[in-house]
Amino acid sequence: MSEIRKHYFLEDYCIIAAGRGKRPSDYSSFPEVQNATSCVFCAGKEDMTPPAMAVYKHGKILQDSKNELIRDWQIRCIPNLYPALSPEGAGIPYQSGYGFHEVIIETPQHEKRLTNFTDDEMTLLMTAYRDRVLHYWKQPQIQYVSLFKNWGKQAGASLEHTHSQLIALPLIPPLIKRESDLIHEKSKCPYCDIVHMESSNERSIYENKHFIAFAPYCSKVPFEIWFLPKEHVSHLGAMSEDMLHSLGVAMSYVLSRLETVLGSPSYNYMFFQLLNDDSYHLNIRLQPVTSKMAGFEKNTDIFINTMPPEKAAEYMNEGMSEQETH
Amino acid sequence: MSEIRKHYFLEDYCIIAAGRGKRPSDYSSFPEVQNATSCVFCAGKEDMTPPAMAVYKHGKILQDSKNELIRDWQIRCIPNLYPALSPEGAGIPYQSGYGFHEVIIETPQHEKRLTNFTDDEMTLLMTAYRDRVLHYWKQPQIQYVSLFKNWGKQAGASLEHTHSQLIALPLIPPLIKRESDLIHEKSKCPYCDIVHMESSNERSIYENKHFIAFAPYCSKVPFEIWFLPKEHVSHLGAMSEDMLHSLGVAMSYVLSRLETVLGSPSYNYMFFQLLNDDSYHLNIRLQPVTSKMAGFEKNTDIFINTMPPEKAAEYMNEGMSEQETH
Repeated sequence: MSEIRKHYFLEDYCIIAAGRGKRPSDYSSFPEVQNATSCVFCAGKEDMTPPAMAVYKHGKILQDSKNELIRDWQIRCIPNLYPALSPEGAGIPYQSGYGFHEVIIETPQHEKRLTNFTDDEMTLLMTAYRDRVLHYWKQPQIQYVSLFKNWGKQAGASLEHTHSQLIALPLIPPLIKRESDLIHEKSKCPYCDIVHMESSNERSIYENKHFIAFAPYCSKVPFEIWFLPKEHVSHLGAMSEDMLHSLGVAMSYVLSRLETVLGSPSYNYMFFQLLNDDSYHLNIRLQPVTSKMAGFEKNTDIFINTMPPEKAAEYMNEGMSEQETH
Repeated sequence: MSEIRKHYFLEDYCIIAAGRGKRPSDYSSFPEVQNATSCVFCAGKEDMTPPAMAVYKHGKILQDSKNELIRDWQIRCIPNLYPALSPEGAGIPYQSGYGFHEVIIETPQHEKRLTNFTDDEMTLLMTAYRDRVLHYWKQPQIQYVSLFKNWGKQAGASLEHTHSQLIALPLIPPLIKRESDLIHEKSKCPYCDIVHMESSNERSIYENKHFIAFAPYCSKVPFEIWFLPKEHVSHLGAMSEDMLHSLGVAMSYVLSRLETVLGSPSYNYMFFQLLNDDSYHLNIRLQPVTSKMAGFEKNTDIFINTMPPEKAAEYMNEGMSEQETH
């Protein structure tokens, strides 16, 4: 039997259709391996990309110059070679596709993936996320900064070397605008309610000092997982070092569990946040890519999900003791 | 240089990013061929599926009975074996996933595809679409009937034998509701304006007695194509036989051209229509699947399209004389 579920507070529905009784192995996939020797994101290939806007190196944030490309880095932020938007035509932002498109190379090592990162490396990545988002949010006419990661070919990653992306836009996406408008109408933050509701129930997956992770009631896709700060913060820039550390550790835990349960899934994660709207509650949505978006979804924007989030959480928690997950 | 484009009348944006100068061959794909012998949609395998709700056979519409499965059919409509929604729990429609999920098998022949259909066969398919949509719209508590086709694995088709699907829902999808609300606020039908605007410009692809086809200004994906009736009709049930014929011929033309230009693309097409809302203007959106929906789209609902619709229309019209396309 299926179930039509409404989003926690938005006019947004999904269909949970567990009929086929699927198991995690039905969603497993293993990525094709690319050739590291041709990768332009690797250490030593700095001259093969545009100069870096920001380079994280042993506690410092540096920038490439024309004469000197910084070597021996930890995280390297470069303009996307094929930008969706570019800073040229600021005068007519829509017609000229004004904006910024950056690639955040998360490590100089080709084979390394987020699940191999130490807690310190994850914290540094969250710090770089915060810095880069704030940097672009301050640019003229920028209204929204989209921060996301595509991991694996099925999730839209064209290069294998682990990286995230950031696109700064001269508009607030209507999707986000609708959500923030609805939140303004409420007397209390609905995400704060969600933190309370999903902290210790059958959809809970992880909790630490500052963050919870859970399979949302209205999961659009199998093994969708949300990360929510327990305190109300609107964007990465409002987060303390301690919170960034908590977030890094939470993501690291969840991604590792996902790898154990699903093999090596392609996935996207997206940061939802607003800089100038204190009523918004930052949230991060992780969606493994295990199925195709087909005609029904494109017609209705209602997703058919064959893995109930309660069941997904059960698989994610299998064999983990209370102590390990908390 | 990119361009940020707004939808004709909705708060909906896309990014046209032609930077990489792609050609149709960059979007081409060829499907894997499945084994016809194991196909349950083929003629002779009628006992391998649930009994048909409607069978189109030489001018008649019949129904399978327990004792007799109809053979020698043209189009066969069966309940989906793994329904997203099912008619059981009508009392609590959301919690019990109430609705209907039908598969429309478009031909008894495994190798046949829509581009091999005669005009008469296309007209019969449009007639079946109309009949089945109206049938489900009349069921208790049904608010919306989603009619769509997934063609090719990349478009979400799990079976190769050409078929369409229909899912009847106990709610109007919020996406459609928002659009219809916005149309109600207008003094004039915005789709009628679009017919006028896109009938003979650089995005036009095809026109016949009752329909136009064009690459929409705000194309979300490469080679997206919309079909619009020139007269204002809200749903398939309001269309005359002559209009159904025009639609079938228009779709046949466009799908054949698409095959010439893109090889053998996976695609989805979706019918947007409302039964009890005369202000709505039926429209059909065809989206080839040539790229992945990635983190940016999932974060913002703004699509990055690397093929400007003007360029897509140019490729679709290449080598076609005025006479052939009109």
